Amino acid sequence: MTNAQPSTDARRRHDPAVRGFASDNYAGIHPEILAALAVANDGHQISYGEDAYTEHLQDVFKAHFGERAQAYPVFNGTGANVTALQALLPRWGAVVAAATAHINVDEGGAPEKMGGIKLLTVPTPDGKLTPELIDEQAWGFGDEHRAQPLAVSITQSTELGTVYTPDEIRAICDHAHQLGMLVHVDGSRLANAAATLGLPFRAFTTDAGVDVLSFGGTKNGLMLGECVVVLNPDAVRNITFLRKTSMQLASKMRFISVQFEALLAGDLWLRNASHANAMAKRLESAVAAVDGVTVVRPVQANAVFALLPREVSERLQKRFRFYFWNEHTGEVRWMCSFDTTEADIDAFAAAIAEEMGR
Amino acid sequence: MTNAQPSTDARRRHDPAVRGFASDNYAGIHPEILAALAVANDGHQISYGEDAYTEHLQDVFKAHFGERAQAYPVFNGTGANVTALQALLPRWGAVVAAATAHINVDEGGAPEKMGGIKLLTVPTPDGKLTPELIDEQAWGFGDEHRAQPLAVSITQSTELGTVYTPDEIRAICDHAHQLGMLVHVDGSRLANAAATLGLPFRAFTTDAGVDVLSFGGTKNGLMLGECVVVLNPDAVRNITFLRKTSMQLASKMRFISVQFEALLAGDLWLRNASHANAMAKRLESAVAAVDGVTVVRPVQANAVFALLPREVSERLQKRFRFYFWNEHTGEVRWMCSFDTTEADIDAFAAAIAEEMGR
Amino acid sequence: MTNAQPSTDARRRHDPAVRGFASDNYAGIHPEILAALAVANDGHQISYGEDAYTEHLQDVFKAHFGERAQAYPVFNGTGANVTALQALLPRWGAVVAAATAHINVDEGGAPEKMGGIKLLTVPTPDGKLTPELIDEQAWGFGDEHRAQPLAVSITQSTELGTVYTPDEIRAICDHAHQLGMLVHVDGSRLANAAATLGLPFRAFTTDAGVDVLSFGGTKNGLMLGECVVVLNPDAVRNITFLRKTSMQLASKMRFISVQFEALLAGDLWLRNASHANAMAKRLESAVAAVDGVTVVRPVQANAVFALLPREVSERLQKRFRFYFWNEHTGEVRWMCSFDTTEADIDAFAAAIAEEMGR
Amino acid sequence: MTNAQPSTDARRRHDPAVRGFASDNYAGIHPEILAALAVANDGHQISYGEDAYTEHLQDVFKAHFGERAQAYPVFNGTGANVTALQALLPRWGAVVAAATAHINVDEGGAPEKMGGIKLLTVPTPDGKLTPELIDEQAWGFGDEHRAQPLAVSITQSTELGTVYTPDEIRAICDHAHQLGMLVHVDGSRLANAAATLGLPFRAFTTDAGVDVLSFGGTKNGLMLGECVVVLNPDAVRNITFLRKTSMQLASKMRFISVQFEALLAGDLWLRNASHANAMAKRLESAVAAVDGVTVVRPVQANAVFALLPREVSERLQKRFRFYFWNEHTGEVRWMCSFDTTEADIDAFAAAIAEEMGR
Repeated sequence: MTNAQPSTDARRRHDPAVRGFASDNYAGIHPEILAALAVANDGHQISYGEDAYTEHLQDVFKAHFGERAQAYPVFNGTGANVTALQALLPRWGAVVAAATAHINVDEGGAPEKMGGIKLLTVPTPDGKLTPELIDEQAWGFGDEHRAQPLAVSITQSTELGTVYTPDEIRAICDHAHQLGMLVHVDGSRLANAAATLGLPFRAFTTDAGVDVLSFGGTKNGLMLGECVVVLNPDAVRNITFLRKTSMQLASKMRFISVQFEALLAGDLWLRNASHANAMAKRLESAVAAVDGVTVVRPVQANAVFALLPREVSERLQKRFRFYFWNEHTGEVRWMCSFDTTEADIDAFAAAIAEEMGR
Repeated sequence: MTNAQPSTDARRRHDPAVRGFASDNYAGIHPEILAALAVANDGHQISYGEDAYTEHLQDVFKAHFGERAQAYPVFNGTGANVTALQALLPRWGAVVAAATAHINVDEGGAPEKMGGIKLLTVPTPDGKLTPELIDEQAWGFGDEHRAQPLAVSITQSTELGTVYTPDEIRAICDHAHQLGMLVHVDGSRLANAAATLGLPFRAFTTDAGVDVLSFGGTKNGLMLGECVVVLNPDAVRNITFLRKTSMQLASKMRFISVQFEALLAGDLWLRNASHANAMAKRLESAVAAVDGVTVVRPVQANAVFALLPREVSERLQKRFRFYFWNEHTGEVRWMCSFDTTEADIDAFAAAIAEEMGR
Repeated sequence: MTNAQPSTDARRRHDPAVRGFASDNYAGIHPEILAALAVANDGHQISYGEDAYTEHLQDVFKAHFGERAQAYPVFNGTGANVTALQALLPRWGAVVAAATAHINVDEGGAPEKMGGIKLLTVPTPDGKLTPELIDEQAWGFGDEHRAQPLAVSITQSTELGTVYTPDEIRAICDHAHQLGMLVHVDGSRLANAAATLGLPFRAFTTDAGVDVLSFGGTKNGLMLGECVVVLNPDAVRNITFLRKTSMQLASKMRFISVQFEALLAGDLWLRNASHANAMAKRLESAVAAVDGVTVVRPVQANAVFALLPREVSERLQKRFRFYFWNEHTGEVRWMCSFDTTEADIDAFAAAIAEEMGR
Repeated sequence: MTNAQPSTDARRRHDPAVRGFASDNYAGIHPEILAALAVANDGHQISYGEDAYTEHLQDVFKAHFGERAQAYPVFNGTGANVTALQALLPRWGAVVAAATAHINVDEGGAPEKMGGIKLLTVPTPDGKLTPELIDEQAWGFGDEHRAQPLAVSITQSTELGTVYTPDEIRAICDHAHQLGMLVHVDGSRLANAAATLGLPFRAFTTDAGVDVLSFGGTKNGLMLGECVVVLNPDAVRNITFLRKTSMQLASKMRFISVQFEALLAGDLWLRNASHANAMAKRLESAVAAVDGVTVVRPVQANAVFALLPREVSERLQKRFRFYFWNEHTGEVRWMCSFDTTEADIDAFAAAIAEEMGR
């Protein structure tokens, strides 16, 4: 580990003091993660995952998800999801998901195009599936005219900032398994859910019956990196082949694995997620005092969804970055991150109040 | 940029003094690249490529490849190749490539599976296509029974450690274009070729008529990162959509882009590649003196291919990592990297001599 | 053409007097179609579509669809739809369709799996899209995170037995074209729509702005055969390549083409479709008189959808074949065919009344 | 069965007395097959394969291929091959085949594009694989970088007119199975091989260890129709789903099945194939007497490959249709069919002699 910062031809091109509320992937690398890269650097390590860091990572994940867990680092969330879903499904399989699921609305059709996977989607009030909602699409088993609904995919925490309880996930898994379906969790923000629930990961994944998981790192402080985590090795096999053909196999994998070690070996994952969640709660409280701004969804993770006059939002966007969630209704989404500060929240809340008051 | 190394829960698990000759992707991150990550860190940047570093990267690539060049960072080489080839080909297209091409032998069938692309392969003596060799597969235009050979893909430097001259590439491009085909270069080791040729990149890519390029970073010192570089924007469009559906779109792209800036803004790319090439030449010279060891291919980049008694190779492998290239013939491949030292070469050559002498 | 029926080792294994109401594809081959096979038989003809019958078929289709029409015979409806949609869409394209569309519910996921095409579906009251309904999914143009909605697919007559007017189709085409989208019509029952509307095909296809059409033959009396009909050759190219890779290229194509000639050169298409439609109307009228049976959708083509007590339906199914359309509501679908007789309708209606009266 | 030929609007557009030597798919429908269509016509039958003819067809195929055989009618050979290969292979699988295999050279890339299947091809002297030739590609098992070679596909009779002996096929199957690979036979001309060998089908398929078969009908007198025949139901499952998503599921399947019944229930398959083979032998003998014409491959089925002066071939092509097999060498292919007559052969041989003599 070198201590003196070496020179580089790269030049800083941004103001490191500027943060916004657009997405938790606007944030950079947590310092402890960045430091971990240096730990794994220098010398040669076998490429493509046979290095010491990826080997050790198995123990790290087993500690969180149980002794049968297997972790397969990949590049990004779409890659994790499409790899995992291919592992769950035969060539004629389909997956039941909420209409708001990232796999449905934000992956450019990669599940269909790369995996040949049909998505059978269900509208939900809060981004969460239930056994009853699953049943709207879980039918036609054995009928060759219908893409076979052989997997369920849920997101924890959801794209709408809500969190499934362990019981809710268990009910989904039990129901799915009774129907012969397997269960995938898109956990790009699983740490935020764990922080909210105050529970270890396995309480609402492995122990609830989940078969395979996309475990997110990027949105919780990694430079980049997600993991396909197999929880039920009886049901999910051959991730190595699927990861490779899905173009998600890193040659210098040690540098993804060591980031996850830094995140998960201690409590960094929890510190980061708890902090982001707390910032969202602080924002919710702050805007509760502002007339004309309504928080329209439960704040259970690190997102705040709000309704306010469109012109106010547009003025605000010139001062702080964030997105409209729904162009029609004018609903906006404010995301907090591991690096959001209390001062950021207070300044943003003040700006909201100020723009509302004009 | 923080100067004090922050703590991390990650622990060193390897000996940073151990290096081998297995692959240039066994090496770690060049210190100047690692330092660049810190440069781009902190604060918020727009995700998915709208950050200041990716914007600036366009200028960096234009300086090397000409004013029309467009750079699209991706995760890995397979991702770059499959994204680029999809951009070149209609749904019924096929690509002519050397039988030894990485896309044919080392990508797990991703071009076929993810891109639906048929590979029309040609055996070559040295890993290099020629207009005549291309003609072995470039026929049947307009015949719906034949997957249409509408692209050529060559590798520079090749998988066999050889290097195309600018004239050779120009002849291929001219021939391909006359046939209505487009040209892709798999440049995962393009810097090694540039170092060998003593020429700027554009002399044997843009100026030779290449349409699209997979530009490699990982094997030349990056943590991870490749770029799809469009050289002929008239022929290659819509990389953004293809990169997304190919699951190659990084959210925190600034950290891939800034690595490329560190590599390419100055001369790090050339220092790294020249060094690796020189180490290969040093190894070639060293083993020339060893009876019973034959270097069987021209050493034009950073690879040395050799024949020696199989049992000698197997004893050597216990001391230094490297791979058999051909299990049948016993040919081995020794790769040098940016971090290979003269001492490494000398120790390895001594070990070869020693094991040969037993 | 031989006049004496030759012997064959095949044996009749069904009662040719039994007909039901399950589907128009339960019917056999119309005698005039069967006779056409013999007309094209004997001697050699170039395979794969360069025969005299396929050549002449171009004129037949031009007479119905205008001088620019190009007809490409294929095997079945799924093949026609997937071939046509691939022609309309780039690799990252998606198609907006009614949730009830055959491509969404009855093709086993072939559009996704074979074409990599994402379906963006919209619930509709009557199986018909409108510009407003299309807008529910036609957004996000240029956003790489969203599969690009670059085509609309409508079904005429629809899966719910309804028929678009020419104005409705023109409005859809105008709207789609303004958005940069192309329009596909799944016309597996296009003849039924033409019969209902009392209009030539082109009035509600070519002249309304449709770009490409799947023209159905099988459900209107062919043994098998559908046609991809390109109406706008500026927008839809290269069907020959797509038909081949989609495994829809018949070697002895003359026998599909001559069936279409028999159907379309005279008025057989209209006789068959008008008859099937009339039988549906007769059935609608007959059951109107039966207490407890409600026809729940407009009868505009050859389908009757009805609600009646489930146990009555189940008893009826032992006497006449038909399907439940919706297992939850108990809605049933009764299809009429070119070979449905008035006596069939009367017997079925009597049976309905009888079973209702028990 | 109607005896009087019904009228039709279709018109004869070809001379039924003209036959050539271009392909066995230039021929029409054998009269006994055409008659079978009428046998299955009239009345309603369940669509999509639950009809009485498809049910009975199972017994017909069991009689030829053994009690475990399962027959799945499809539309064409490419469809049969791609469906069968998908059933044999996981998502990351590859198939070893002769470079001359139809799946490699004549299917427009459908195996790659539709099945995502990589072809690992081997040059052969005679179109036939051997265990040794298979070994050229059957390696890298377990290596995620290599598309896994988990199936072998051979063609019987081959694209070069040669025929495997039962022992040769058994050796291939034994070898493949020992390696954990499954075996597919492309049997688009399987009947020609059976006729040559003088053996029942099962002697060189089921009994030799073949797992799945594409059984050809079209080239042996059917209008259209092939069958995926599962010989080893332990290894090959779920053809129904794959056939559907591969767009190969006929709605009025009875008319494909009854053609196969007419072909296979008696000896029509053997009469047709033996005749075609005999015609090829007659042609071989006839041209043996012509100076300057050399038959360059063993005539073991219904194809004759010959070398003669290119200008002679070109003059001949104006009188009889046939194809150049190899544009470079000038090798031509002459195919005989079930409807080739002795007079056709004699006239063609006379024309060859005449044109040679000019």
